[in-house]
Amino acid sequence: MTKPLPSGAVIGILGGGQLGRMLAVAAARLGYKAHIYEPAANPPAADVAHALTTASYEDAGALRAFAQSVDVITYEFENIPTSALDLLESLKPIRPGRRALAVSQDRVAEKTFLNDLGLTTAPWASVETAEEMTAAVEKIGAPAILKTTRLGYDGKGQARLREASDAESAFAAMQGAPAILEGFVNFTAEVSVIAARGLDGQVSAYDPGENIHREGILHTTTVPATLRPAQRQDAVLLAARILNALDYVGVMGVELFVTPQGLLVNEIAPRVHNSGHWTQNGCAVDQFEQHIRAVTGWPLGDGSRHSDVVMENLIGDDITRLPDYAREPGTAIHLYGKAEARPGRKMAHINRVKPRS
Amino acid sequence: MTKPLPSGAVIGILGGGQLGRMLAVAAARLGYKAHIYEPAANPPAADVAHALTTASYEDAGALRAFAQSVDVITYEFENIPTSALDLLESLKPIRPGRRALAVSQDRVAEKTFLNDLGLTTAPWASVETAEEMTAAVEKIGAPAILKTTRLGYDGKGQARLREASDAESAFAAMQGAPAILEGFVNFTAEVSVIAARGLDGQVSAYDPGENIHREGILHTTTVPATLRPAQRQDAVLLAARILNALDYVGVMGVELFVTPQGLLVNEIAPRVHNSGHWTQNGCAVDQFEQHIRAVTGWPLGDGSRHSDVVMENLIGDDITRLPDYAREPGTAIHLYGKAEARPGRKMAHINRVKPRS
Repeated sequence: MTKPLPSGAVIGILGGGQLGRMLAVAAARLGYKAHIYEPAANPPAADVAHALTTASYEDAGALRAFAQSVDVITYEFENIPTSALDLLESLKPIRPGRRALAVSQDRVAEKTFLNDLGLTTAPWASVETAEEMTAAVEKIGAPAILKTTRLGYDGKGQARLREASDAESAFAAMQGAPAILEGFVNFTAEVSVIAARGLDGQVSAYDPGENIHREGILHTTTVPATLRPAQRQDAVLLAARILNALDYVGVMGVELFVTPQGLLVNEIAPRVHNSGHWTQNGCAVDQFEQHIRAVTGWPLGDGSRHSDVVMENLIGDDITRLPDYAREPGTAIHLYGKAEARPGRKMAHINRVKPRS
Repeated sequence: MTKPLPSGAVIGILGGGQLGRMLAVAAARLGYKAHIYEPAANPPAADVAHALTTASYEDAGALRAFAQSVDVITYEFENIPTSALDLLESLKPIRPGRRALAVSQDRVAEKTFLNDLGLTTAPWASVETAEEMTAAVEKIGAPAILKTTRLGYDGKGQARLREASDAESAFAAMQGAPAILEGFVNFTAEVSVIAARGLDGQVSAYDPGENIHREGILHTTTVPATLRPAQRQDAVLLAARILNALDYVGVMGVELFVTPQGLLVNEIAPRVHNSGHWTQNGCAVDQFEQHIRAVTGWPLGDGSRHSDVVMENLIGDDITRLPDYAREPGTAIHLYGKAEARPGRKMAHINRVKPRS
């Protein structure tokens, strides 16, 4: 067993949004200090952090000073520029490691990695040229969706093909960027497994949660998910296989489609995940603490579920309903401290907790 | 219903120890920023606070700047100098208010207040002169304990009387400070009720916890306490009576002795309390958030208990046992980020959680 980082050590966190904020609180609970690196001003994570660096990911001096002031580096989002990672990695350990980032930053690499592991994904084809686009549409059919392979986030850089004749305009929308054509999947539910792997290789997974999206953004996650016991076990084992294959350290979100033919992997996120927020009020050790435990070398904590939970995101003006939620029995509130409630902006979430069914 | 302070408002917290630290985290969860005022360097609360003022309670300039930068003031300990309170109160609301502080800062005022409410305490007598000491020992008998009326904390400023003949040396130990002689109580258990009262007068109490002390410091709190249903109800009603009588706003810890003759009030603390730490893993809304809700004008949250919990304090070298606790199923860890593990110093606590019995 590796000795964990000593109390008082500093955890560097790339990204100062709500995930960084909840990671910083978890770090404090384990006796660590959090140092946030974030280009934008007044990031939500700064309210609960020991230190804040406001600088871009191109600022080599700021990156170097940040790395020198911390003991380990982790992140709340996966699209960190490669040049920044190269510099940081030369100075301090980055956990989860580069392999997980490389796979999750590129949709073709991600699908290839998953298929090579023997896991099923939506049908897909790599598209870099007009000829490849024609071949891809022939292989996948329509409807389908064309996405840039890199930096995709919440529906940006995507074009839908309702029918095969949309191929040309969709390809043009990529503006020459390498892309991937993905077929649609007939699924009965989307579930996600929040899994963790420690520095010592120990793997632990939370009970799968069932996700409902609205306008492309996660709306609710419900535990328990409506899965048969065998599916539940499949989901957890599948996630463990991914973490082990990547020699992963930290928490990962694995999104799965439930289909009549079995479980398909939709996407993986090498970080704490919105669909794991229910763990804050459903488990003795939540996903944020589990992540900090992993990256600092602690043994993983007990992630077993003591309660049923429905997590609901409050997006934009949803926040005006808070006074009602605040009075609800069994409802826990988690605000992100964002000043302005813009449409589509995640402002808070609530966890509605009930005794385990 | 009063409108709560808006998201982004600043909560001023007097005291930067572990209670201030956990209050700061709760403030963030409700979208507020915490500003800590603490004379000592590197206070535990600063790691998770938006701002820190390092200054003494005699520094009028620092107190004034602090008050001007916050929207409401609360505190993690009750022995704040009166001059500081006078200055702060002239600039911003202090919650809980002065009446609660006046009562809890003076043992004679506290006992008088409780007895006037019709509540039973240990037998006591005020002692300011040698003559009063003689009369007090005649009234109370021995064994008994003589304490200074003000600034008592964890056994400081106290002298035990094993027999009546110890009276003279005990009185001398007070060095002329006003004191109180308290008789010993034959109790079967010590329980505490963590109760909250909102700005709107709503009262809510957590399930009473049962306390075990070691060497004068709280060792464990267990919920449920071994109380009969009628005693449980008495304990909660009694606490509510105290909060209402003080027009109290915030969380209060009420320590009670269980005796064959009924419940006796041992002492009250106008703040979040060590014996309420179990709420962090036993309830949807913990004592820290309940306190922040009260002082910012939110409705009180649901403090009903979803689990059985045993809270254990880790004092001094106890901290070396953390690696074992970290592996225990159902165990949640809360470290305070203190650099040095001195004997008698509270370093962390753990909550051992089990399904509700």
